[in-house]
Amino acid sequence: MEPFALQRALDNVRATAPLVHNITNYVTVNDCANALLAIGASPIMSDEPADVEDIASICGGLTLNIGTLNERSIQGMFAAGERASELGHPIVLDPVGAGASVLRTRTAGDLLDKLAVSVIRGNMSEVKALAGGSAATRGVDVCPDDAVCEDNLAAGAAFARAFAAKTGAVVAITGAIDIVADAERAYAVRNGSPLMGRITGAGCMLSCVCTAFAVANPGATLDAMAAAVAGMGLAGQVAQNRMSGYDGNGSFRTYLLDALYNLDGAALEAGAKVEQLA
Amino acid sequence: MEPFALQRALDNVRATAPLVHNITNYVTVNDCANALLAIGASPIMSDEPADVEDIASICGGLTLNIGTLNERSIQGMFAAGERASELGHPIVLDPVGAGASVLRTRTAGDLLDKLAVSVIRGNMSEVKALAGGSAATRGVDVCPDDAVCEDNLAAGAAFARAFAAKTGAVVAITGAIDIVADAERAYAVRNGSPLMGRITGAGCMLSCVCTAFAVANPGATLDAMAAAVAGMGLAGQVAQNRMSGYDGNGSFRTYLLDALYNLDGAALEAGAKVEQLA
Amino acid sequence: MEPFALQRALDNVRATAPLVHNITNYVTVNDCANALLAIGASPIMSDEPADVEDIASICGGLTLNIGTLNERSIQGMFAAGERASELGHPIVLDPVGAGASVLRTRTAGDLLDKLAVSVIRGNMSEVKALAGGSAATRGVDVCPDDAVCEDNLAAGAAFARAFAAKTGAVVAITGAIDIVADAERAYAVRNGSPLMGRITGAGCMLSCVCTAFAVANPGATLDAMAAAVAGMGLAGQVAQNRMSGYDGNGSFRTYLLDALYNLDGAALEAGAKVEQLA
Repeated sequence: MEPFALQRALDNVRATAPLVHNITNYVTVNDCANALLAIGASPIMSDEPADVEDIASICGGLTLNIGTLNERSIQGMFAAGERASELGHPIVLDPVGAGASVLRTRTAGDLLDKLAVSVIRGNMSEVKALAGGSAATRGVDVCPDDAVCEDNLAAGAAFARAFAAKTGAVVAITGAIDIVADAERAYAVRNGSPLMGRITGAGCMLSCVCTAFAVANPGATLDAMAAAVAGMGLAGQVAQNRMSGYDGNGSFRTYLLDALYNLDGAALEAGAKVEQLA
Repeated sequence: MEPFALQRALDNVRATAPLVHNITNYVTVNDCANALLAIGASPIMSDEPADVEDIASICGGLTLNIGTLNERSIQGMFAAGERASELGHPIVLDPVGAGASVLRTRTAGDLLDKLAVSVIRGNMSEVKALAGGSAATRGVDVCPDDAVCEDNLAAGAAFARAFAAKTGAVVAITGAIDIVADAERAYAVRNGSPLMGRITGAGCMLSCVCTAFAVANPGATLDAMAAAVAGMGLAGQVAQNRMSGYDGNGSFRTYLLDALYNLDGAALEAGAKVEQLA
Repeated sequence: MEPFALQRALDNVRATAPLVHNITNYVTVNDCANALLAIGASPIMSDEPADVEDIASICGGLTLNIGTLNERSIQGMFAAGERASELGHPIVLDPVGAGASVLRTRTAGDLLDKLAVSVIRGNMSEVKALAGGSAATRGVDVCPDDAVCEDNLAAGAAFARAFAAKTGAVVAITGAIDIVADAERAYAVRNGSPLMGRITGAGCMLSCVCTAFAVANPGATLDAMAAAVAGMGLAGQVAQNRMSGYDGNGSFRTYLLDALYNLDGAALEAGAKVEQLA
C-alpha cells in the first residue's frame, strides 16, 4: 500500500460527505446512521420498493444488510441494487446470518449474483456460507472453527482472494484478525477490540462505513476497505482504552461512535496495523 | 408572546404527561420514545392499520413521520390520522425526505390534504417540497441554498406564514435559525447547536416533542411550538456545553436526551431566544 | 428458594451463552440485543415467516414481544412459536399494550392459547388484560389502579398464581414491587428503580433476559425468573446510584446496560431482595 493511502481514504470521506443509501436491519439501524454521521457521511434509510429507486438515484452508494430481512425489504434490496448498478454506484453486501437460514443464504446469494456488488463484508462463517463452502453457523456470530487466527490466516486470505476473483468484489472478512482482499492482493488488519463482539452492530456499522469509503474513493476500493476496516478497529481500541469503573457495553457503544467521530486521517495512518500478505 | 408563555407550555407537558401515538421511522424511533419520556410525556408506537385506530383513540395526539415509510405504514398513517382528526387530537406531520422521492413528496402531500394536521415540522427543503415550491433536495438534509440565515430570514418567515395560512397548520421550519409561524405571526428561534446535525434523529425527536406540547397546550399551538423548538434547541446547547475530551456524537446523543430530561420551565423561559418577527 | 439459586441461575447464563431468538418491537430492539449481550447471551432477531423456523431451530429459546406488531410479524410469531414448541424450547411472551387495542389483546391471547408459553412477563394491566380480568389500560404503561404495592401484594400474588395454574406458565408481573409465580409458589422482588420507567425498553429488555435465563436453567424456570427479575432490578439500582450532575434518562439507559454487563452471580445473590410469599 502506498504511504498515506489510508489517511487519504478517510480524508476523502470527510471532504466529500457522501450520501449513503442503506437497507439494513432494524436492530442496529440507529447505530449505522450515527456511525455514518460520525465518519463524515450522510445516511438515508429506505426499503420500500416504491421508494428505493428515487433514493438510490440521489445517493452515491448502497448498503445491503440482510439482517431482519422480509419479503418487502428483499424486493426493495433488488430494486435499489438494480438502480445503483445502473448508475455505477458501489454496493456493499453484508450477508448477516447467511448460513443460519435458507432464506438468508439464498437471498445473499441472489443479491450477489444479480447485482454489481463492489464489497462483501461479513464474518468468516457468513462469507463461507455465501461462497457455498460451509453450512455451519452460530446464528449471526462466527463459528469457533471459522475464527481467523494466525494459524489459519494464510488459508483465510487465499479463500478471500479466490472468492474476490470469482465475484469481482472486494472481500472483507472481519474477526479477531480481519482480512481484506481482491483477486490480486490481501491485507491482514490487526486493529480492533474484543469488546466489539459484546455490542450489537459493530459489523453492521462497519458495512455502512465501508460504503461511505467506497463512494469517496472511486478506483481504490481495496485500499479504501482496508482503511475502513482499520479505522473501525482503531475506533474500537480507542473506545476500549476509555473504559473504566462501572462501564460496560452500554458505554462501549457510545465510546465507539465517539471514537469514529474523532478519528482523523493522520491518526488512522499512524494507528492502522495493515499488513500486506503474500 | 406573553411573559412565561414558554415556561407554562413546558410545565403543562410535565403536569399532564400526555400519551402520544407515533408512527415514525425505525431509524430514530428509540430516541423519539426516550425524548418523549425525557420531556415528561408517554410514547406509544403503532403502525399496523388494524391496530392504530384503537391506539389513536386512547392517546391525546399523533405524530406522523414519513421516514422509512412503507405501503403498510402509510395505510396506518391515514387510518390513525382519520381517527385522530375525528377526535380533534393534534396531528404533527414530519415530512422526512419530502422532495427526495416521489413517494415521500406525494405521501406527505396527501396526509396534509386529507387530515386535520395541526403542525408541520421539517427542514426548509422538506417544507418547500411539501408546499410545491421546490424540487431540490439533499436526501434528508437541507439543501445548502435552502438553509435559513439572517439574510433570508424575512423571506423564510413570509413563506412559513403563507404556508400556514394555506394549510391551517402551524409551520415549524428548523435549521441554524428556526422559524415557527401561523398565518398571523412568525417567530425566529435562535437556540440550538450545530452538533444536532451530527446525530440522527434530532428533527424526529423534536416532532414527537412538538406533539406532546400540542396536546398539553390546547388553543395555544403557536406558542407551544415555539416552546418545543426553543426547548429542543436549548437542550442541544446544554448538551454541547457538556462535551469534552474524547466525546463525539455518541455522547452528544446521550447528553441531548439528558438535557431534555432536566429541562424545566424556568430554564426554558430564561434560555429561550425567541424573537417575534414583523 | 435454595441458597445460591439466584447466583447459579446467572452463572448458568454466562457459562452457556444461550442463543436467543427474539421477535420484538422496533422501538427497543437495539436495547434488547445489547441487554442479551450484556448478560452473556447472544441475540438473533428474525420476524419474517419464511425465516423464523430456521432461526428458531438453531436457537435455544424464543421471546415474543407484541409491541409494534403487524400482520406479517404476527404470522412470524406463530410460525416461530410452533417450531420452538415442537423443539421444547422455552417461550417468553411479553404482551406489550395488551388491553390497549383489540389486536394486541387478541394476539397475545391467541399466542398464549396456541403455543407452549413458558413465561409471561408484563405489567399488571397487561397481564390482567391477557387474563381477561380487566379492560382498563394506559397504553403501554400500567394503570395507576393496577400498580402493585404492599397493600395489594397478597391479592396480586394470588392472581399471579391462579393465572400460572391456568396457563402452565411462570407469571412475572413487574412494577414497583415485582411478583414472580408459578401455580405453587410466589415471590415478591423488591429490587429496581423508578428511573426504569423513565426510559423506554426496561420491560422489553427484561423479557429477553428472561428468555436467556429460561434457556440456561432448564427445569428451574421459577427460580430463574426470580433471578432475571431481581438481576434487572439490581442493575437498575446500580444505574441509579451512578447518576449525577447533568445525567438524565439518556445516561440512565447506558448505565443500565453497563450494570447488566457487570452483574455477576455473587453480587446478584447478595443484592437480590426476593421474598417467598405464603
